Amino acid sequence: MSSTTSWREKLHEVIFEADTPVGKWFDIALIFCILASVLVVMLDSVAPVRRAYGPLLYLAEWVFTILFTIEYILRLICVGRPLKYARSFFGVIDLLAIVPTYLSLVLPGSQYLLVIRMLRIIRVFRVLKLVQYLQEAAVLSRALRASRRKIFVFLYTVFIMVIIIGSLMYMIEGEKSGFTSIPRSIYWAVVTLTTVGYGDIAPQTPLGQTLATLVMVMGYGIIAVPTGIVTVEMERNAQYARLSTQSCRQCAAEGHDSDAIYCKYCGEKL
Amino acid sequence: MSSTTSWREKLHEVIFEADTPVGKWFDIALIFCILASVLVVMLDSVAPVRRAYGPLLYLAEWVFTILFTIEYILRLICVGRPLKYARSFFGVIDLLAIVPTYLSLVLPGSQYLLVIRMLRIIRVFRVLKLVQYLQEAAVLSRALRASRRKIFVFLYTVFIMVIIIGSLMYMIEGEKSGFTSIPRSIYWAVVTLTTVGYGDIAPQTPLGQTLATLVMVMGYGIIAVPTGIVTVEMERNAQYARLSTQSCRQCAAEGHDSDAIYCKYCGEKL
Amino acid sequence: MSSTTSWREKLHEVIFEADTPVGKWFDIALIFCILASVLVVMLDSVAPVRRAYGPLLYLAEWVFTILFTIEYILRLICVGRPLKYARSFFGVIDLLAIVPTYLSLVLPGSQYLLVIRMLRIIRVFRVLKLVQYLQEAAVLSRALRASRRKIFVFLYTVFIMVIIIGSLMYMIEGEKSGFTSIPRSIYWAVVTLTTVGYGDIAPQTPLGQTLATLVMVMGYGIIAVPTGIVTVEMERNAQYARLSTQSCRQCAAEGHDSDAIYCKYCGEKL
Amino acid sequence: MSSTTSWREKLHEVIFEADTPVGKWFDIALIFCILASVLVVMLDSVAPVRRAYGPLLYLAEWVFTILFTIEYILRLICVGRPLKYARSFFGVIDLLAIVPTYLSLVLPGSQYLLVIRMLRIIRVFRVLKLVQYLQEAAVLSRALRASRRKIFVFLYTVFIMVIIIGSLMYMIEGEKSGFTSIPRSIYWAVVTLTTVGYGDIAPQTPLGQTLATLVMVMGYGIIAVPTGIVTVEMERNAQYARLSTQSCRQCAAEGHDSDAIYCKYCGEKL
Repeated sequence: MSSTTSWREKLHEVIFEADTPVGKWFDIALIFCILASVLVVMLDSVAPVRRAYGPLLYLAEWVFTILFTIEYILRLICVGRPLKYARSFFGVIDLLAIVPTYLSLVLPGSQYLLVIRMLRIIRVFRVLKLVQYLQEAAVLSRALRASRRKIFVFLYTVFIMVIIIGSLMYMIEGEKSGFTSIPRSIYWAVVTLTTVGYGDIAPQTPLGQTLATLVMVMGYGIIAVPTGIVTVEMERNAQYARLSTQSCRQCAAEGHDSDAIYCKYCGEKL
Repeated sequence: MSSTTSWREKLHEVIFEADTPVGKWFDIALIFCILASVLVVMLDSVAPVRRAYGPLLYLAEWVFTILFTIEYILRLICVGRPLKYARSFFGVIDLLAIVPTYLSLVLPGSQYLLVIRMLRIIRVFRVLKLVQYLQEAAVLSRALRASRRKIFVFLYTVFIMVIIIGSLMYMIEGEKSGFTSIPRSIYWAVVTLTTVGYGDIAPQTPLGQTLATLVMVMGYGIIAVPTGIVTVEMERNAQYARLSTQSCRQCAAEGHDSDAIYCKYCGEKL
Repeated sequence: MSSTTSWREKLHEVIFEADTPVGKWFDIALIFCILASVLVVMLDSVAPVRRAYGPLLYLAEWVFTILFTIEYILRLICVGRPLKYARSFFGVIDLLAIVPTYLSLVLPGSQYLLVIRMLRIIRVFRVLKLVQYLQEAAVLSRALRASRRKIFVFLYTVFIMVIIIGSLMYMIEGEKSGFTSIPRSIYWAVVTLTTVGYGDIAPQTPLGQTLATLVMVMGYGIIAVPTGIVTVEMERNAQYARLSTQSCRQCAAEGHDSDAIYCKYCGEKL
Repeated sequence: MSSTTSWREKLHEVIFEADTPVGKWFDIALIFCILASVLVVMLDSVAPVRRAYGPLLYLAEWVFTILFTIEYILRLICVGRPLKYARSFFGVIDLLAIVPTYLSLVLPGSQYLLVIRMLRIIRVFRVLKLVQYLQEAAVLSRALRASRRKIFVFLYTVFIMVIIIGSLMYMIEGEKSGFTSIPRSIYWAVVTLTTVGYGDIAPQTPLGQTLATLVMVMGYGIIAVPTGIVTVEMERNAQYARLSTQSCRQCAAEGHDSDAIYCKYCGEKL
């Protein structure tokens, strides 16, 4: 029926788009609700606050969850292909955002997982039409995607290194120093290689401290590798932006340098 | 009256400018007073020194504050538009630099805020006519300004990540490990992601230590992102400084160096 | 005999190559065995697990070692030049991967060294024909190799610095602060310069803390050096990949892109 | 007398140059003596070793110091302008390398300063004729020198920031948290901003931990600035190496791009 269709279209306009004033205010209200609900669950985790306001916070959590559930159902109703939305990235996030509170009825303590609602706030960029931010975010993510193989090789190497270093340190230091097992020693190796350095475990023997010195200098230095990878990819992206936007009149090819006189593909003058 | 005007002009010359010898020496004396007053309040915070010299330091703090108050009033008097100065960045800093000591009469302990006077020392570059330093500072700050959107996207992502990681760790570790609330766990997540690693809170369970390992490697690696952003922006700035914006009148080619006299493509004069 | 030769060839095909289905499955099974054997020795180091499953784990370790020994012998048999293989990088790794378990009969506790088997997993890239990953790894390692002299100069400078800083701190802080000897102070200097910062030793005197401040700012800043070195080398590599080494036959110009067909300066075919 | 002059020349040849076999072996022996003497004083600082071998180590320290004193006197004798040598960088290092042991007769404990001898080992590059290492070191040091103003602006900003942050934290946390004075709080600010994070002092109040979070993210991020500065300078150095080495036949100017056809300074064909 045409009136039902226009009701669904209007709802779609409000919930999924932000072009109309209603749609925009809906999204702003949504973002505030998400932030408020996350704040509620954070306060709920602070023991003094929970003792003082526990029932109120619990009520607020459920109010928000019911609201978000109704919103999710409305989304399913007014979108063209509900299954396609439910399986998309945002659809899954929207679902995971309401599940934890229900899950906490079965598994106490799991309601804190609802902080995954924070990922829904990415829509703020679309609402406030911050196009430039979306572009810059796209540049960043394109550079990271282009570097993924080098980053994988790097992580793979680090993975093998920490296993070998952890095992060596386990053999050198032994249990009384805190290196009670190889997994724990690998944990120490990661803490040290990444220069976090908690100090909860630290080598006590001279040989162990010497190996630790090598690990620290290695960790300090090899951070240059992922930095170099990402910087070079971002530089390449920036350079593509510097190529001329001309296209050859004869063969329509693009991607000419700004100082090119002749098309490098067909030899005609630009 | 012309004599009053020339009195104000002369005062303006001394206080705001550093071209005359008197103006220059005023500024040098000012910088020394600022440094000395900050040193005084730092010594005042060291308990043994306060016990020994308390009254003397207190007197010195007030002497400096009275001096700076007189200086501020003189500035307001001899500048053309007092309100415009009072609302400018430096005007606000100059006011905030004298307020804390007065505030400490009402709010004990707030006099330490006067270290904000340190920001006034930025004028040292202008006094000593360190033009090149001002230029380089301008390059740095232009690069940072140009990167601001990418940096915002990055910080935003980190913000969402530490909330989710903190909540996960709160659920995994629980109170006996020190993860007493979600805010405290988020604090741990920031300490670990930034590789600071105090060690005041550290995961005790194997699952928690595994998640911590992921957080550490993430923090270690994603530092590549802001570094890449800033490096590419600084590279772009450096390149613009090397190319002139001229185009050859004969062959319309661009991309000439700033020191080029003849077009490198067709030989004609630029 | 031709049948024995083809038996050796077939074995070589299976063990060293991954082109045939059998060869591929052999390598996949090998990788699983390596991972499983490393997991076994890691579990063996965790005291509760060792108490519960000790004999079983010990048996598993020997089963894997026997399997790998048989595999190593088979490799020696079916390769053309056994000595050349035994002295190659992979040959040495393969041998070191089986020695520790035998060594533990003489030197208890040395079986944990067998985690060196993890280095054998590098073959996974060849098996799964991940050519692009091998290429990217080659780019990374070429950039690191090209930077080796600058990195050596850098490490050399850091080496001299930590010795001098460690000695200074030993003289300033003395034994009660934990700086019990120069080697231990050098260990502290490395922990601080690399920003790991365990906190197991930390300066207590004001002068020591002032020197520590300088060391920290130094360490924080000089990480820019290896990062700059590696980034510039990777940038150079990336540029060479984009330019072809051709020069135009007509006008002898260089610097053409690898996808150029016509010289961009004179329009002639390359 | 000609024989005395040739004696001095021969001595100069041996001590200052490394072209003759004698000169080369002198330098190698010198480096070994320096390393050995530093090792001796390091062992001397380890209490168990000092108890066991104290007198022997003390004797060794003096033997080395006498040897180096004789060498220093010989240098003064055989160089053309002794005062010029004594005031040069290496001359001062050579003197500072022998003074501490004499100083320890007056000021016990100062002999450890002799580790400054380690700076003398820089001559190893000249001895072993590692020209390429010297070149790469020159590139590194030229890049660092070119960045010095930006680095100064950066350090200056960090200096002002840690004073303000330290004072704020002192007012927020107070003495029971370990923030006993503003200097100590500034020390904490440096420890945190540089991501070293000892954990010897850490904020306890929620407000303090919130401010600490900001400081950590700031420190984590602003490391991008010196890294960007150094990387861009090294990139510029590398680019100068990529310019053609041609000089214009007419006006002898250099610094042309590799793709230039006409001299950009005088318009003549290259």
